[in-house]
Amino acid sequence: MNVHAWAATAANQPLAPFQITRREVGAKDVQLEILYSGICHSDIHQARGEWGNSKFPMVPGHEIIGRVLKVGANVTKFKVGDLAGVGCMVDSCRTCSPCGTGEEQFCEAQPAWTYNSTEMDRTTPTYGGYSTHVVVTEHFALKVPASLDLKTAAPLLCAGITTYSPLRQWNCKPGDKVAVMGLGGLGHMAVKLAAAMGAEVTVLSSSKAKEADAKRLGAADFASSTEKGSLKRLKNRFNLIIDCVSADHDFDQYLGTLAPFGALVLVGAPPKPSQVSSFALINNNRRLAGSSIGGIRQTQEMLDFCAEKKLGADIELIAAKDINVAYERMLKNDVRYRFVIDAKTFAT
Amino acid sequence: MNVHAWAATAANQPLAPFQITRREVGAKDVQLEILYSGICHSDIHQARGEWGNSKFPMVPGHEIIGRVLKVGANVTKFKVGDLAGVGCMVDSCRTCSPCGTGEEQFCEAQPAWTYNSTEMDRTTPTYGGYSTHVVVTEHFALKVPASLDLKTAAPLLCAGITTYSPLRQWNCKPGDKVAVMGLGGLGHMAVKLAAAMGAEVTVLSSSKAKEADAKRLGAADFASSTEKGSLKRLKNRFNLIIDCVSADHDFDQYLGTLAPFGALVLVGAPPKPSQVSSFALINNNRRLAGSSIGGIRQTQEMLDFCAEKKLGADIELIAAKDINVAYERMLKNDVRYRFVIDAKTFAT
Repeated sequence: MNVHAWAATAANQPLAPFQITRREVGAKDVQLEILYSGICHSDIHQARGEWGNSKFPMVPGHEIIGRVLKVGANVTKFKVGDLAGVGCMVDSCRTCSPCGTGEEQFCEAQPAWTYNSTEMDRTTPTYGGYSTHVVVTEHFALKVPASLDLKTAAPLLCAGITTYSPLRQWNCKPGDKVAVMGLGGLGHMAVKLAAAMGAEVTVLSSSKAKEADAKRLGAADFASSTEKGSLKRLKNRFNLIIDCVSADHDFDQYLGTLAPFGALVLVGAPPKPSQVSSFALINNNRRLAGSSIGGIRQTQEMLDFCAEKKLGADIELIAAKDINVAYERMLKNDVRYRFVIDAKTFAT
Repeated sequence: MNVHAWAATAANQPLAPFQITRREVGAKDVQLEILYSGICHSDIHQARGEWGNSKFPMVPGHEIIGRVLKVGANVTKFKVGDLAGVGCMVDSCRTCSPCGTGEEQFCEAQPAWTYNSTEMDRTTPTYGGYSTHVVVTEHFALKVPASLDLKTAAPLLCAGITTYSPLRQWNCKPGDKVAVMGLGGLGHMAVKLAAAMGAEVTVLSSSKAKEADAKRLGAADFASSTEKGSLKRLKNRFNLIIDCVSADHDFDQYLGTLAPFGALVLVGAPPKPSQVSSFALINNNRRLAGSSIGGIRQTQEMLDFCAEKKLGADIELIAAKDINVAYERMLKNDVRYRFVIDAKTFAT
């Protein structure tokens, strides 16, 4: 079917209305009417060709909430009218070891990413959520609990799972001291999720102006990451740090704030490497780790957790025509904390 | 009591015979006649003042196997005639959180290290295992299973626990693919221990000449860390890497050989920081960690494991008069794989 979308046609072009074709609904496919589509910072990087792997025309968007319009003959997970979500992946090989353990993001054949990628045939381009409809194999569609506030749920599909996964991997539990570095789209979800898991959350931010917000989101403490002596005060304190800072920074100085067996987990991706000293790691058996989104099983678990805890992102709902302005505002950190596009507006 | 020892009297002096006084046996103390004392590379660093924290005169040695000669009135763990071991620590505060969880090496007041340190009074210097006798509070003495070969057991108290601990922390299990980087005192123990836990061990070494030894020690595979393309062949392969290399090296390129959720654990301590890129960590949710010896409870567990599996270090037994020559040979990597001093020879 022909579908309305918004696309970048080149790295130096603003996004604009565009027509794409979605495949016919196969036996294991579901077709969604998209309701809401979140804007992730990676949309900007890719639409502007900043990661060197951009394919144009590009329809960004991997934070998708929709309603099932059609199901294929062999679909068992959904029926017409169900709510469904699509995150960063729309397919994977399903036979390799990571796929077998539910970590499709590490598929040895590489997953089919939701946009700026290809289907597993390695030919058909994938187009993302800045559109009115999407067709996806049911395994990669998530069940969206009806109790979620749908527009605030869209960012859960990327920002939510990206911060939920490391909290679970590192066994975040009531009473744990968890720091969140950087209070943006990812960071604000990390604060909400860690607090909902019972952790005592400290926000580390360079922007003192965000202290009130940090507390409102669930943080018990706030520390300036730039003020002299503030890291010293936090020495050996945290069980876990979720590092959401995507600008270059020095990992080493934050490692010193980890308690024995504590972990600093990178979910932002600073472009340049950082110096890391063996002593900072060996003392207190500290860990420096990375974490990349999460598998489908864990993404479902996260959505169910958010429904139970009544969590969603703090969002600003916009129309498709505002996408380019939203990108500019995101580059100035002028969003609290995620833009979500009302998908009705892609058609107009 | 006055005790024969070998000491460095200054950073630029060879070790030589020296007299020290050991305290009277307190209510919770045990006095050991030392039988064997291993030489750890850190003995050289400290005896030569290379870490900037050396106190002279210094009696090195923290790989001690002995026999109990006297026990204090309230000692319950040992009786006269028992075998006992002493590792890197002889006391800690016993009240802080890490002490409470059996991780005395991270005592918030800092442990009393076995030598080049002070007792918890922070005044009385500690002297190590290059001597005929030692007095230690029973909590910090390990029970040495009689089935162990005592001279090969001495290095277990440092090299053994240093490599055993990360294998347990990272849940090494049968079938895991474990790499050991650097085949020296630590590395050769890591190979033996990982193989005994059922792992499939690969030795990564710059010295092709060590391949036969690696296989003899229990490795299934060997890869040159310097040969072109060898790391590419190992991409995404290992669940765990025990990095025993204490010379400066690039952590990043080895991270690429880790499978999803795999960990590279530093137990050597390269003096200079290394560059680490966020991408190497985020891809595959990789972890870079450090590990520092192990607590008393885990050290006991390790000794019991080695007794069950009939493991000890590969050693060369020497007399006290050979210590300075042994140091020189260690600096040339000319030992397979640990020197152990026959403690009888300290008296002569």
